Amino acid sequence: MQVYLNGAYVNSEDAKVSVGDRGFVFGDGVYEVTRVVNGKFFRENEHLARLREGLAGLKIHVKDSVLEQIPEISRELIKRNHHTEGEAAVYLQVTRGSAWPRTHTFPDPPVKPTVYLSSSPFTPHTRLHQTGVDAITVSDIRWTRCNLKTVNLLPNTLAKQQAKDAGVNSAIMIRDGVVTESPNANIFGVKNGALYTFPATNYILNGITRQAVLEVAEDLEIPVYFNPIRLDELFDIDELFFSGTTTDIQPVTVIDGKPIGSSQPGPIVKSIQKGYNKLLYT
Amino acid sequence: MQVYLNGAYVNSEDAKVSVGDRGFVFGDGVYEVTRVVNGKFFRENEHLARLREGLAGLKIHVKDSVLEQIPEISRELIKRNHHTEGEAAVYLQVTRGSAWPRTHTFPDPPVKPTVYLSSSPFTPHTRLHQTGVDAITVSDIRWTRCNLKTVNLLPNTLAKQQAKDAGVNSAIMIRDGVVTESPNANIFGVKNGALYTFPATNYILNGITRQAVLEVAEDLEIPVYFNPIRLDELFDIDELFFSGTTTDIQPVTVIDGKPIGSSQPGPIVKSIQKGYNKLLYT
Repeated sequence: MQVYLNGAYVNSEDAKVSVGDRGFVFGDGVYEVTRVVNGKFFRENEHLARLREGLAGLKIHVKDSVLEQIPEISRELIKRNHHTEGEAAVYLQVTRGSAWPRTHTFPDPPVKPTVYLSSSPFTPHTRLHQTGVDAITVSDIRWTRCNLKTVNLLPNTLAKQQAKDAGVNSAIMIRDGVVTESPNANIFGVKNGALYTFPATNYILNGITRQAVLEVAEDLEIPVYFNPIRLDELFDIDELFFSGTTTDIQPVTVIDGKPIGSSQPGPIVKSIQKGYNKLLYT
Repeated sequence: MQVYLNGAYVNSEDAKVSVGDRGFVFGDGVYEVTRVVNGKFFRENEHLARLREGLAGLKIHVKDSVLEQIPEISRELIKRNHHTEGEAAVYLQVTRGSAWPRTHTFPDPPVKPTVYLSSSPFTPHTRLHQTGVDAITVSDIRWTRCNLKTVNLLPNTLAKQQAKDAGVNSAIMIRDGVVTESPNANIFGVKNGALYTFPATNYILNGITRQAVLEVAEDLEIPVYFNPIRLDELFDIDELFFSGTTTDIQPVTVIDGKPIGSSQPGPIVKSIQKGYNKLLYT
């Protein structure tokens, strides 16, 4: 497998960054994961726009000429890795770059950012999309700039591992008594035919798939309320589902061992799945 | 300059980790910084104990035989870098290691952790210890496992940079209306001859220097209250100071442009500095 790192395509085993890279010592960087279907990048512009937002949020200055190369690099990468047919995912990470000595403040003058891309084959979780998954509730212990898609991902990895250790698929993160996100997906609830989801504030990542769900809901004339689901309402809702780039639209049918709705994927999530698949695959 | 990386001493320019290292893609690791004076490591056992706590907190399993080598590696490193005389600092970072494909859950079976150490000459901020420094208040936007010394340090770097951009030395982080920490130091307030500091909960890092300050205070019979300083009390206190491995004991004399106490380092911080220097230098 080849990856792209700072201007060169190299074998993944040879792709290395300095121990002085601020991605390594501070988690000082942002990332994106983009789905690719038969060589077609899904919502690429949206991912690139969010990348720019994240870089601006962290004040990492990357030349426009570098950012503008990303689509071309991504295509070259999937070509080299034979990911142009079938499904794939392209991972992209940009960090503030490598600097000595290690100081909390940004390198002054700025250093060259580290740009890293990889591609991998992707298998959608089709069976789980049909059966639904189980989850546990956990505290959302993240910082309060969750709108930035940074590589400071420890709370997410710990929550996902906590779910795995509990023998379930994922976690429902709760902050201040309301549902925010899963460790790697947004969350929608369904009640009386309407969608409920946490508003796109600093407490969640405004997912590209989340935004696609909103489009699908509009097409289907399903009302959407940007109100978070309260923990005390969670077990009274009709349906719940995750949305995410590698998650797609994933019904959640059991939380903390208790059924959500009928404990089967419901009619609303099925219609959202159908609409989303149309966007993704055509 | 040489650094230690996964079993070898290499030139810092050649010290590289895989782009698959979970330190790079998730900030999935912990670190320590230890002061070295004329080859003597200050509070080394305390740093190593906290390292073990952090590894346990993240469930990163490092063989005892590896951890037990750290003092020897540290000594060899400062020897190679000619840091055995005068002052130096040794940086140590352990990550969960490199794993493909990238998944939030921990690699199963576990991979070999990445162990990285570097040493650098250190110049104490002696003049600032005498004059005091200024700071701004900022929101403490960190996650709620601040007791773990992880490399998920974005909120800290952003706060420190915010201070620099504001033309001041550092930041006083406020969570829920009370003072927690600076981006890289603990905070003590002084009122009527007693110390006030945030208790060692999940909201602060329990600094090694903080613990030394508590010992010095006990020696000097200065009462200590583990009560956080409320923002509304901040400008009525007599003195305020930072404590940290590279900060030492640092008076803060101006916050948000307003004087703290007499706007000069006060008698209590001076006595703490004296006691701390005795611990560090003898």
